[in-house]
Amino acid sequence: MPRYKLLLEYDGTTLVGWQRQAQGVSVQSLLEDAFEKLGEKGAFVQGAGRTDAGVHATGQVGHVDLAKEWDPWRLCGGLNAHLKHAPVSVLDAQLVDEDFHARFSATSRSYMYRLVVRSSPLVLDAHRAWRLPPPFDVALMQEAAQVLLGTHDFTSFRASECQATSPVRTLDRLDVTEEGGDVRFFIEARSFLHHQVRNFVGTLQLVARGRMTVAQFTDVLEAKDRRRAGPTAPACGLTLTGVGY
Amino acid sequence: MPRYKLLLEYDGTTLVGWQRQAQGVSVQSLLEDAFEKLGEKGAFVQGAGRTDAGVHATGQVGHVDLAKEWDPWRLCGGLNAHLKHAPVSVLDAQLVDEDFHARFSATSRSYMYRLVVRSSPLVLDAHRAWRLPPPFDVALMQEAAQVLLGTHDFTSFRASECQATSPVRTLDRLDVTEEGGDVRFFIEARSFLHHQVRNFVGTLQLVARGRMTVAQFTDVLEAKDRRRAGPTAPACGLTLTGVGY
Repeated sequence: MPRYKLLLEYDGTTLVGWQRQAQGVSVQSLLEDAFEKLGEKGAFVQGAGRTDAGVHATGQVGHVDLAKEWDPWRLCGGLNAHLKHAPVSVLDAQLVDEDFHARFSATSRSYMYRLVVRSSPLVLDAHRAWRLPPPFDVALMQEAAQVLLGTHDFTSFRASECQATSPVRTLDRLDVTEEGGDVRFFIEARSFLHHQVRNFVGTLQLVARGRMTVAQFTDVLEAKDRRRAGPTAPACGLTLTGVGY
Repeated sequence: MPRYKLLLEYDGTTLVGWQRQAQGVSVQSLLEDAFEKLGEKGAFVQGAGRTDAGVHATGQVGHVDLAKEWDPWRLCGGLNAHLKHAPVSVLDAQLVDEDFHARFSATSRSYMYRLVVRSSPLVLDAHRAWRLPPPFDVALMQEAAQVLLGTHDFTSFRASECQATSPVRTLDRLDVTEEGGDVRFFIEARSFLHHQVRNFVGTLQLVARGRMTVAQFTDVLEAKDRRRAGPTAPACGLTLTGVGY
């Protein structure tokens, strides 16, 4: 069976996440329904990572084995035609070797978390960012964020329901930019623990708002205790921007 | 009666535009309903310009005369509380002199039009940009756009229902930027004709797509004939970004 790599964008606002669930609409179910309409009944789409409900993607990757061989351009167009009005768009499709695996072949995952600092409610960026009121010290937060780079036991930033065997991960990038109150975190690692990025942001914002010092933030990492970190930042600010192979 | 200047953001997707209409929800009706809930029944909000249905704003300005004097911060917060779940946000409120007029005191209006060049449907930017397929020559379009700068009779780019007495306007800025297929037009003038920006973009994209030469584009401006220009670009790509006084 020929294997195809798919590059995907989605708006997670109304979705239950990547994975098919008993209730609700998932990215997987929308894609698999579109495949069925193309005559590819029973296609299973394997994602590079399972994004949670409300999380967006501009560069999610999946793979799928199909019954027949497709011209990638036609496959892309056919899927998008059947995804009309659905919050999922297929950006690219490519025929790949059968040893390519969207999840296990991945060597890096990149996320962007967006936070807007202002007093009034978000309208154009509602469901696209987390709004927090000023004052907000980005420089202080940036300083604290550097503590996370490299290899650490990230137990303090790991969801209790995380199924990974080890809490140790290597964070390769954590850059923070700010422009007119629009704060963006660019985060990259080979893999992440469940809620790791959202727990980073939920704790770092405490530093920016003067509720935690940089020294205390360092202590949180070293404590290896989830109860010491801040809340999980809302899903709406998070976007999976790319997967490297 | 004290006069207040309001700075407004809105998502025009579900709105009939700025102006109150017999049917549908407008920015004006949402704001005036919020004022009524604050005890300011009969408040009339004068906007700097009437945006059409589907057009967004990040910097619309309005003024309103109120029965009582309000602390601007409380006024902002009170309006936003009553606008909860509405696609309008009050970014700022200021007490101004009674000779300030949102429309007649304005000396410049700035718009941004956003266009995304790609084959697959937009999902995260649906209702925020106009999607057009490649190939798309931005440089050629930029060259054509320069013809529009300065003072001209813009009859070719004016909607038939335009109520302005003169078709002559002075265009002070028209910059085009492009990054990864995200094309943005930054346009500024003292005032605009009805649909002027959308007709500029609807005609310029013909140049970018090789359906009109730069010389032909110049001819369109000089013809002073609406039938010679391209289609009106969709409202969803347009945002009123600021009003200068």
